[in-house]
Amino acid sequence: MEIICNPSRDKWAQLLARPVFDNSKILSTVQAVLDDVRSRGDVAVKEYELKFDKAALPSLQVSEQEIEEAASLVSSDLKEAISTAIENITKFHEVQMHIPPIIETTKGVKCWQKFVPIDKVGLYIPGGTAPLFSTVLMLAVPAKIAGCKEIILCTPPDSEGKVNSAILYAAKAAGATKIYKIGGVQAIGAMAYGTESVPKVYKIFGPGNPYVTTAKQIVSVKDVAIDMPAGPSEVAIIADSTQKPEIIAADMLSQAEHGTTSQSIVFTTDAELAANIMAEAEKQCAASPRREFIAKSLENSRIFVLDNIEDVIDMSNEYAPEHLIISCKNFAAVGAQITNAGSVFLGLYTPESAGDYASGTNHTLPTSGYAKAYSGVNMDSFVKKITFQEISSEGLDNIGKTIEVMAENESLFAHKYAVTVRKH
Amino acid sequence: MEIICNPSRDKWAQLLARPVFDNSKILSTVQAVLDDVRSRGDVAVKEYELKFDKAALPSLQVSEQEIEEAASLVSSDLKEAISTAIENITKFHEVQMHIPPIIETTKGVKCWQKFVPIDKVGLYIPGGTAPLFSTVLMLAVPAKIAGCKEIILCTPPDSEGKVNSAILYAAKAAGATKIYKIGGVQAIGAMAYGTESVPKVYKIFGPGNPYVTTAKQIVSVKDVAIDMPAGPSEVAIIADSTQKPEIIAADMLSQAEHGTTSQSIVFTTDAELAANIMAEAEKQCAASPRREFIAKSLENSRIFVLDNIEDVIDMSNEYAPEHLIISCKNFAAVGAQITNAGSVFLGLYTPESAGDYASGTNHTLPTSGYAKAYSGVNMDSFVKKITFQEISSEGLDNIGKTIEVMAENESLFAHKYAVTVRKH
Repeated sequence: MEIICNPSRDKWAQLLARPVFDNSKILSTVQAVLDDVRSRGDVAVKEYELKFDKAALPSLQVSEQEIEEAASLVSSDLKEAISTAIENITKFHEVQMHIPPIIETTKGVKCWQKFVPIDKVGLYIPGGTAPLFSTVLMLAVPAKIAGCKEIILCTPPDSEGKVNSAILYAAKAAGATKIYKIGGVQAIGAMAYGTESVPKVYKIFGPGNPYVTTAKQIVSVKDVAIDMPAGPSEVAIIADSTQKPEIIAADMLSQAEHGTTSQSIVFTTDAELAANIMAEAEKQCAASPRREFIAKSLENSRIFVLDNIEDVIDMSNEYAPEHLIISCKNFAAVGAQITNAGSVFLGLYTPESAGDYASGTNHTLPTSGYAKAYSGVNMDSFVKKITFQEISSEGLDNIGKTIEVMAENESLFAHKYAVTVRKH
Repeated sequence: MEIICNPSRDKWAQLLARPVFDNSKILSTVQAVLDDVRSRGDVAVKEYELKFDKAALPSLQVSEQEIEEAASLVSSDLKEAISTAIENITKFHEVQMHIPPIIETTKGVKCWQKFVPIDKVGLYIPGGTAPLFSTVLMLAVPAKIAGCKEIILCTPPDSEGKVNSAILYAAKAAGATKIYKIGGVQAIGAMAYGTESVPKVYKIFGPGNPYVTTAKQIVSVKDVAIDMPAGPSEVAIIADSTQKPEIIAADMLSQAEHGTTSQSIVFTTDAELAANIMAEAEKQCAASPRREFIAKSLENSRIFVLDNIEDVIDMSNEYAPEHLIISCKNFAAVGAQITNAGSVFLGLYTPESAGDYASGTNHTLPTSGYAKAYSGVNMDSFVKKITFQEISSEGLDNIGKTIEVMAENESLFAHKYAVTVRKH
């Protein structure tokens, strides 16, 4: 971790750069697995499950019985927490489905948008040490609200062919329609192309390791839509002395535990606070059972001490963080000037983990500066907005000449004739 | 053109396949130009302008004087038509900016979305025979409504270094902030990476030839967002004998004139109508000054005669057309069952060209079946929906346990501690 004071603006881009992962070395491996799944379907998927997850699977789909068994293994505490999270996620997402009114742009010319769910969506949930059942909720709940008919979920099994109970419970509770024991690149291939047992989907969502991310990139070029490009998770914190250094350090560590490529950045105008945060972070890190791992993550972290709050806001907007915690006195005023961020956490009692789990906002968010152009997952991610227009004979009289003049000037004479021929 | 009667469902995908363009042969050329623009900036761009557009350009940016001159060259008829189109596009798009209310998901936990314009967007307008000033309106008008600060437009000059007057006039009228005389791959590279004179943008919009499309694909992987993947334009028409064969044929030809890879598809239950449409299309084609070109395009066209309207609707949804004209008696009932399409044209007086120019809907739409997952360009394309949450001390008491239980079950203990540390 490093404290950097008042760097000149021409250095900002370099100082705010993310750790870059070069995927050129894994590209051909990923492509080969995708091609194989495309041509050999289930047989290939099962071979890769044996190879990568050490699981010999008679059937890829999780059975109803397995789902029932999983439910019996989940504690009532966790069931209650999942239920509260689903409730809050539902409340926040369902109000986003506002359908604009029918507009008569010219007399006799009616135009509107119709929101139609994407028929089949695929959700990828990684395995590994932390079972991300919260991500199941963040993707399946809005898919269900949107009305997606098939909500396919793929997640890797353990070597005994079992899927984590909390993931199965969350999937069922949130509305996934089919769950498969498939991980990694083979899962992305199965959902992108379809196999004998896995339906081809139209859009794939969810996080993953560099192999999964690369597979999503490849299939997104032609075969299927994806939620957004992905990179390591990150948090930025705008802080002043209103917030305790202990809490700011805890927020940094809660990012650091995601992985060694995660990044925590602090922006402040208070040099003393910066020093205190650094001391606290080192103290908490030393006290953690995962101190070696967290210490490595914190190497990507920086605390910027800047002259004034305007610079703080500009630098944060230039960074465009996935998560932005605004822990300062005037958090509302500062928040109002934020133009690039995935999700913003305002005030002294709003940790990032609230949005990760249960406030109701979505935790699938743009990383790596993509927040300059991308939104996090929201209801738009699960619907198509089809435009409709209905023009009466009078309406065509009213805008016919406009269309004809424009078509003629674009040398598209048959476009013009499609109007002319209707006038007689 | 071919009439196909009642094909079995397992043949549909094959019969509805689009002409495929294999870009593997141009990939390395495109990549080389992009790399060159990235490393050498304006110098490289000017070299490619000389090479590909035969234009020696002292300056890349269109001057105010050039814009004024262009305005004096545009007819008052066209000016009026552009003004009407802008008005209708504005009316239809501005009602889409509905910001959902602040939601208190749990007492003390407030969540909301803030719509923030993408700061810098880049619009690409192709050159060639038809000056697509209508596309300028379809991209710049919503960008301006959204509030994008920089609306950069790139379009190729002619060999004298001049840009089409109607494009310049439309760009100025619709709100483009800077216009550059740059075409092809070098334009996409300039906007994706920035050069000495062209600002780097965060999202690139607009159509183009296979080189431009490939360049957009490449830069979209890491450097910049794009509007959507692109393919040749297409129309599907659901028709019965309520509509005249002459008009249906005219609609097919108005698609065919876009290019030899364009596709027109008709779905009907009426075999006699199918034969009449085919005869009319051949007649109109023969009478056209561009008959050779249009005849070639119509080779991609098919008329499907199906047993019943349910099959018609299913097959249209399977095709997922960019444009769908519903020219039949029960157009409203049929339209209600459409789930995959870019833009739908209802009734006897609604040609596709209405939406191409002036009804108010957007004409930048998903082709190649992408309508199964993608929407056409709309206000969402120009904004980010940033989520905010503000939790009070009481709110954290209310959802704190939920967060702690979930974090613990995901083995993310620092996430849990970020809540715990705030409770004291």
